[in-house]
Amino acid sequence: MPFTTSFVPEIRFGEGVHETIAASAHALGARSVLVVIDGFLAAGGLGERLAGQFDAEGVAVAFFSGFAGEPKLAAVEAATAAARGKDLVVGLGGGSALDIAKIAACVAAGADGPMHYALAAHPLPGRPLRKILVPTTAGTGSETSATTIFTGPEGKKLWIWGPETKADLVLLDPALTVTLPANLTAWCGLDAFVHAFEAATNRNAHAGAALYAHAALGLLVEALETAVNNPADRKARGKMLLGACYAGIAIDNCGTAIAHTISHALAGLAPVHHGLATALGFEATLGWLVEADTADLAAAARACGLQDAAMLPGFVADLMDRCGIVRALPAAFAAFTAEDLAREMRAPENQPMRRSTIRAVADADIDAFATSMMALPRTL
Amino acid sequence: MPFTTSFVPEIRFGEGVHETIAASAHALGARSVLVVIDGFLAAGGLGERLAGQFDAEGVAVAFFSGFAGEPKLAAVEAATAAARGKDLVVGLGGGSALDIAKIAACVAAGADGPMHYALAAHPLPGRPLRKILVPTTAGTGSETSATTIFTGPEGKKLWIWGPETKADLVLLDPALTVTLPANLTAWCGLDAFVHAFEAATNRNAHAGAALYAHAALGLLVEALETAVNNPADRKARGKMLLGACYAGIAIDNCGTAIAHTISHALAGLAPVHHGLATALGFEATLGWLVEADTADLAAAARACGLQDAAMLPGFVADLMDRCGIVRALPAAFAAFTAEDLAREMRAPENQPMRRSTIRAVADADIDAFATSMMALPRTL
Repeated sequence: MPFTTSFVPEIRFGEGVHETIAASAHALGARSVLVVIDGFLAAGGLGERLAGQFDAEGVAVAFFSGFAGEPKLAAVEAATAAARGKDLVVGLGGGSALDIAKIAACVAAGADGPMHYALAAHPLPGRPLRKILVPTTAGTGSETSATTIFTGPEGKKLWIWGPETKADLVLLDPALTVTLPANLTAWCGLDAFVHAFEAATNRNAHAGAALYAHAALGLLVEALETAVNNPADRKARGKMLLGACYAGIAIDNCGTAIAHTISHALAGLAPVHHGLATALGFEATLGWLVEADTADLAAAARACGLQDAAMLPGFVADLMDRCGIVRALPAAFAAFTAEDLAREMRAPENQPMRRSTIRAVADADIDAFATSMMALPRTL
Repeated sequence: MPFTTSFVPEIRFGEGVHETIAASAHALGARSVLVVIDGFLAAGGLGERLAGQFDAEGVAVAFFSGFAGEPKLAAVEAATAAARGKDLVVGLGGGSALDIAKIAACVAAGADGPMHYALAAHPLPGRPLRKILVPTTAGTGSETSATTIFTGPEGKKLWIWGPETKADLVLLDPALTVTLPANLTAWCGLDAFVHAFEAATNRNAHAGAALYAHAALGLLVEALETAVNNPADRKARGKMLLGACYAGIAIDNCGTAIAHTISHALAGLAPVHHGLATALGFEATLGWLVEADTADLAAAARACGLQDAAMLPGFVADLMDRCGIVRALPAAFAAFTAEDLAREMRAPENQPMRRSTIRAVADADIDAFATSMMALPRTL
């Protein structure tokens, strides 16, 4: 079976590697840097420490924290404006900080704004600013993917894709993730798990990406419960971070599947954490999915330490229990019905994930999944 | 344990991907290309076909086949001269073609010749020509490493190292390897096996590179005997090619160890195939090595499908038997003694591999290994 694995950036892993951000930027030839950083991280002393480190390297630095929650167009535009004239962008934080940094670094290399490139309307400029990505949640894997997501002017989820968005250097520091609360650790960890699982088992799956996807499954299964229940465990936090990073490589090559059709459709109705939405969508479809009984499903099950794919639904439900994941949607979903969700699942932007699912997803399946999702309590 | 894994280039794997060389060069923006290609491949019709494909893409192409055996300075200089003014270099052939292509692409970006950069005397120029590497033997892994080796004016093995030498694109086409004779398949395959094994178990070994090293061991163990005994088996050839490529990533990060001290020392005495020399050096030291009984050795054994590291020496000897590897040195070695080999093993350029070995290599060990190597028949 032919395959292509896209390039994998240099990855530095270890306790304290985030202290090398300024020195790494200098080593990459940067003279002037924009750091896109979560506001609470910047305020917590990290911003000040970084400013001192950039100063010591003789590199000019500016900070951008003008965003909250998932990236919105205004934030992406403001970050792009701040990146103009710089030669390197650091993304430091959750998936939003990383996506905003990636977009700003690419878009600032041209004269147009982010909307010019949304949904691949135009190719990205040729020479993006360099990028150092430093995730502080083990989840999206944005640090190793070529994808970015932001909310457009009409509230729709848009994306800017391209190898230009990929990192020059990824720094994985477990120390940055120990303060992540238990529920976010679980939701982000499940998101990463589903990334690895869907990339390893969908119609685009191939041996090249399976190397990373299977490693991710092993690491995440090994560490997730410990990271949730013993947040200071640096070893477990390190495995989560590396697992999410490898899962990012896997989706960079093979994309996702039905669980992401559901989570994106849910987000089209009302705000919900992407990791939680994905976990709930995954649990609701996994029993149906494993009936496909493919070699890839069996291999993914083995990577999780299971004998066969039929054991996966029980295993995942138990893992979610052990990680304290409450099966419920935010209260705002009380305003919507299964029909609303099914309509979103049929929206054009959610079809690629539906089509890449290893089982054909019939219209009746969409309705059944939507019904089962909207039967969840709305209590969050 | 902190670690860094260097960037991994885009890898395209599959039957027939070598037919995309010209299109890939065009897609990388090349207008003028040098193809460094083994003479027998160029003469066998591939050169003509490539010329037509480059012509169809509107890309100017020149060919360089002025080399035989391991790269010598004159060939490296001639290739560099041929690369000047081009914007992309293709390396198509065994490890020598790839190394010459890598050096030419880097050195042609500056005004100096190859010797200016040998043994890291000066940093490589900043903007190397782009590189597409297409291995036709499953062995050196040069397509994914930052290392090149050539013979200097005094007959010494020199190297030019740097991330600048790495490929922009790797094409792995099993179809190109089916004509490799059985003895070369075995020697090159053992070389790749030892790369993966040493990278996974030496003092520089780390979890990031183990991902690739263990995958390589699994693929090579699975396919080597079949590739040797059933040369047309494309599936086995594909596994060998991918395994050697992953082993290249592993040594790019962690380097080698004692078996390579021996093979480089042997090459310092008289010409011998690098893969054979490495295999013989590996067999001569493996029983001693596994006494270290480390977790990394145990993990490498498991990656080979074995229960523990103590089984490795018997397993490797059997594998070499099954692949028909004759334990003998070329006749030219009749002129040398164990003392000669021990002296070469103590040469400064062979100390890094000695020092990275997981067991301390005492002077008495050097003497014992040299004695055991030079007790081999000289009949090849």
